[in-house]
Amino acid sequence: MNENSDNNLEALRHTASHILAQAVKRLYPDTKLCIGPAIENGFYYDFFRNEPFTPQDLENITSEMKNIVKENLPVERVEYDRKKAEEILKNEPFKLEILSEIQDEKVSFYKQGEFIDLCAGPHVSSTGKVKHFKLTGVSSAYWRGDEKRESLQRIYGVCFPEKEQLDQYLLTVEEAKKRDHRILGPSLGLFSLQPDFGPGLVYWHPAGATVRKIIEDFWREIHLERGYQLLYTPHIASISLWEKSGHLSFYRENMYPPMNMEQGISYQLKPMNCPFHILIYQTTLHSYKEFPIRWAELGTVYRYEKDGVLHGVLRVRGFTQDDAHIFCRPDQIESEVMEVLDLVMFFLSKFGFTEYEIYLSTRPDKFVGSVENWEKATQALENALKKKNLDYQVDPGEGVFYGPKIDLKIRDCLKRTWQCSTIQVDFNIPERFGLKYVNQENKFERPIMIHRAVMGSLERFFGILIEHYSGNFPLWLAPVQVKILTIADRFIPYGQQVAQLCRENKIRAGVDVSQESLNKKIHMAENEKIPVIVIVGEKEQSTGTVAVRLHKKGRKTVLPLEDFVRNLKEIDRNKSTEIDL
Amino acid sequence: MNENSDNNLEALRHTASHILAQAVKRLYPDTKLCIGPAIENGFYYDFFRNEPFTPQDLENITSEMKNIVKENLPVERVEYDRKKAEEILKNEPFKLEILSEIQDEKVSFYKQGEFIDLCAGPHVSSTGKVKHFKLTGVSSAYWRGDEKRESLQRIYGVCFPEKEQLDQYLLTVEEAKKRDHRILGPSLGLFSLQPDFGPGLVYWHPAGATVRKIIEDFWREIHLERGYQLLYTPHIASISLWEKSGHLSFYRENMYPPMNMEQGISYQLKPMNCPFHILIYQTTLHSYKEFPIRWAELGTVYRYEKDGVLHGVLRVRGFTQDDAHIFCRPDQIESEVMEVLDLVMFFLSKFGFTEYEIYLSTRPDKFVGSVENWEKATQALENALKKKNLDYQVDPGEGVFYGPKIDLKIRDCLKRTWQCSTIQVDFNIPERFGLKYVNQENKFERPIMIHRAVMGSLERFFGILIEHYSGNFPLWLAPVQVKILTIADRFIPYGQQVAQLCRENKIRAGVDVSQESLNKKIHMAENEKIPVIVIVGEKEQSTGTVAVRLHKKGRKTVLPLEDFVRNLKEIDRNKSTEIDL
Repeated sequence: MNENSDNNLEALRHTASHILAQAVKRLYPDTKLCIGPAIENGFYYDFFRNEPFTPQDLENITSEMKNIVKENLPVERVEYDRKKAEEILKNEPFKLEILSEIQDEKVSFYKQGEFIDLCAGPHVSSTGKVKHFKLTGVSSAYWRGDEKRESLQRIYGVCFPEKEQLDQYLLTVEEAKKRDHRILGPSLGLFSLQPDFGPGLVYWHPAGATVRKIIEDFWREIHLERGYQLLYTPHIASISLWEKSGHLSFYRENMYPPMNMEQGISYQLKPMNCPFHILIYQTTLHSYKEFPIRWAELGTVYRYEKDGVLHGVLRVRGFTQDDAHIFCRPDQIESEVMEVLDLVMFFLSKFGFTEYEIYLSTRPDKFVGSVENWEKATQALENALKKKNLDYQVDPGEGVFYGPKIDLKIRDCLKRTWQCSTIQVDFNIPERFGLKYVNQENKFERPIMIHRAVMGSLERFFGILIEHYSGNFPLWLAPVQVKILTIADRFIPYGQQVAQLCRENKIRAGVDVSQESLNKKIHMAENEKIPVIVIVGEKEQSTGTVAVRLHKKGRKTVLPLEDFVRNLKEIDRNKSTEIDL
Repeated sequence: MNENSDNNLEALRHTASHILAQAVKRLYPDTKLCIGPAIENGFYYDFFRNEPFTPQDLENITSEMKNIVKENLPVERVEYDRKKAEEILKNEPFKLEILSEIQDEKVSFYKQGEFIDLCAGPHVSSTGKVKHFKLTGVSSAYWRGDEKRESLQRIYGVCFPEKEQLDQYLLTVEEAKKRDHRILGPSLGLFSLQPDFGPGLVYWHPAGATVRKIIEDFWREIHLERGYQLLYTPHIASISLWEKSGHLSFYRENMYPPMNMEQGISYQLKPMNCPFHILIYQTTLHSYKEFPIRWAELGTVYRYEKDGVLHGVLRVRGFTQDDAHIFCRPDQIESEVMEVLDLVMFFLSKFGFTEYEIYLSTRPDKFVGSVENWEKATQALENALKKKNLDYQVDPGEGVFYGPKIDLKIRDCLKRTWQCSTIQVDFNIPERFGLKYVNQENKFERPIMIHRAVMGSLERFFGILIEHYSGNFPLWLAPVQVKILTIADRFIPYGQQVAQLCRENKIRAGVDVSQESLNKKIHMAENEKIPVIVIVGEKEQSTGTVAVRLHKKGRKTVLPLEDFVRNLKEIDRNKSTEIDL
């Protein structure tokens, strides 16, 4: 028994899983135990049983778990020799299989009341400590994750030390469900997936494509302003390029199969843009005077992710990287990284993401390049973070084999974090392709190459945006910004005049000319999550004004038409997240 | 002998090829004759001979051809029976092979002086008619185009009825050579091809990508203004989509090979965007009220063109179609086609293309859909052309099997024509995919689908633009619009101030800070084909002015800096092809 584990979240959740198993064994004694670990936010336990656990079963199990908590049974660690252990587990074939693989003389068990389980711990000191939990569902799993072995039932639960934490977590889950981009995306006409014709491939519908164009335009604009140049490269190359780049040996499992020509040549869909930028770099001789060269591309890449990990547009098989490669001298790394960090935070903040978690990953055990260069580059990354006054965590040894990197996660309105931006120094590719530049002494030198992405993937970023805003995009991103509703059909011409003036000012506006009642029209526009609803009737037409109603706010302001359009244009231009007319 | 053929261009060029063969036989009697047809602009003749024809040989042959013309030999048609024919051709093994495949009793020969050739004609009446010709080169060819047969030497020539026509043609060829986009493209840093890693795939370098972005932005802007909505779709789909669309049966030879997954699923790179737009159409139920739906995409497609036809960026294997699909009711075809024609001509005219050749292609022998619908649609296309007051030619029976179409070729500054825009009605795809919409009577009906492209292919259009402008892009398209040169280094800060003001006004400007002389700098900027060169020194700095020198014009105007930037911005905004400061 380890009293120190009482403050340990993992121990708490692990004990919760034992309480779950104990409750199941009390209610359904024939059930066989498998394994039951603590996981993020909670725990699960795998059971072998012919009958499926029903929702009613889960309620019964929950009640029994509460009893076990109330019984406040002490949790004890005990050790037995193999023979005794086999005796205890004689009716638990899965546990016996685990036992058979343990080499030690003595094996540890944890015991609470009548329940005992082969287990390495840790646990809290008594079942009474596990107060705030909830079972969240059942799914199926294979024994040892092997589809050729027994099919099991996995009961999931969440568990927290404080009630407020559990409530908050459940609320967040509930809220996240409402914001699920897989539901909102198709229902708002933003995108579809067509799994029948290839899972994980995104079809951007008109409304989604409008948002994408706005994002891309903004992305290109700020890149050009900050000294980047654009490139466009093909989506395929012959396999010889991927041999040269090394992707064929270390990345093959993530690639779509090759296209084999009769003549023995094979083509390969690109999983990355880098080799293409390298080929362009190599078409001319470069001088230190040109550095830094900053080449950016919205390059669509294809990676064959496993079926199981695909998730809406957040995890897909075809996605557009907002990629860039910076070629520079070693002494330019620090300033370049500072510039990238600046760009990243400026860009993300415009979308309402102002909280970040930043990680600096350093040299792993397996690496290419010299230790000295790694240290210099890592120092440059660290200096850049410090000079930008950014909080960051060091992930020792978590760098990619080719160089140290900075990863930036954004925190959304539900406090969930999402990996987006990355800045990676690469010692490998310049070496593999024999890149060079002419230095100040007129000698050839190897350039430094930095890979970087702001959004990471446009598709993924779009999914995050949908969930962050729950589909209520700020004005500058909204597919339709203004919907004009008329009190009666005779005001349609005035409504169209309003729409026309909006469009002349590059505001995306439309008139609802349907035969529905005004209330129905308002309801529909609200459902479409249109940020600005304009209502026009006799009064507005005669005075050249508009009555404005903001999405979900309902308050109505009456404004002269010209003021309305001017204000809206300003809000759009500023990319404000709030609409203040 | 057919006197009527004297006015026949083909006959003229065919006789030129016989004169060529006659001259070769006079000079090199051991040479064996193969075939010698008339072709576009001229003729060729294939010869079998061990020694290669040298440039000196070509000169000698030309002299001898002139003699034969001067001799003004009558050209006579004669017929012989097979035995006599074999006797005549006994030393011409290739001719004998042709003879052996002719079934007729009697075979025709053409005879001029001592020269006689197995030939079906037509020819002009005497060698004296062939006055204006020029041999243009030698290339190799295989007998019967079969690489397992004998390797031959093909001598090419051009031939015209009038001297002016020949001179004009030779001038155009000379001029076209100077404008060859395959030379200008890489030398101006616009693009590269990387045949080692896949022929026919275009890499857009920074300067070319700048032009492409401008074209794309303009394209998107006018499409949105004209009621189009954008889409983005994947570059691949599982093979089942291509089975459903029919591409797998009627388009397979143009497609890259499939990517075969282990699980038996195959993916296919898209040769067209249509099926993807169809899938989006099918995600919701459509009403006649939404029509016309206009969906546009800059969609990159891949088609496996044969090696032999690849040509720079004009004929490639991966290209970006400026595709759109219009879904409408049958009675909307005419007005939609008028709108498309309007858009096409507005767009093309901005790039300096104001002369067109327009073709209306009607129902072929093999077609889908009803004759009635074909006639209605063809009539709608014709009405649209007439109402737009456009000259056009009818190509009877040249429509695609799925519907009638309008093709538009642009004429460049060398009067060469290039197929770009196309507008095609499609009766097939809506049927294959079972598309529908709800009509006014609340019943399902099949929509009409129109495919259309303005540029056709961005890559091809870019190649045409390069040749049309000879790389001297108008201001609004120029990768770098303004280069600022300083008379001495101490004026660099003022130069940078000029550049900064330009950039703040979205004008692409840079300062040449190299250590070269002013003349060298001017020379370099001219070579880079930068439209506006600004020179600054003492006078300009002290008066806040700039001395402006236009590309290839050399004249210098001095302007106040603010006026210069304002004027330039205006010229850029108007997409003027001339710079008038």
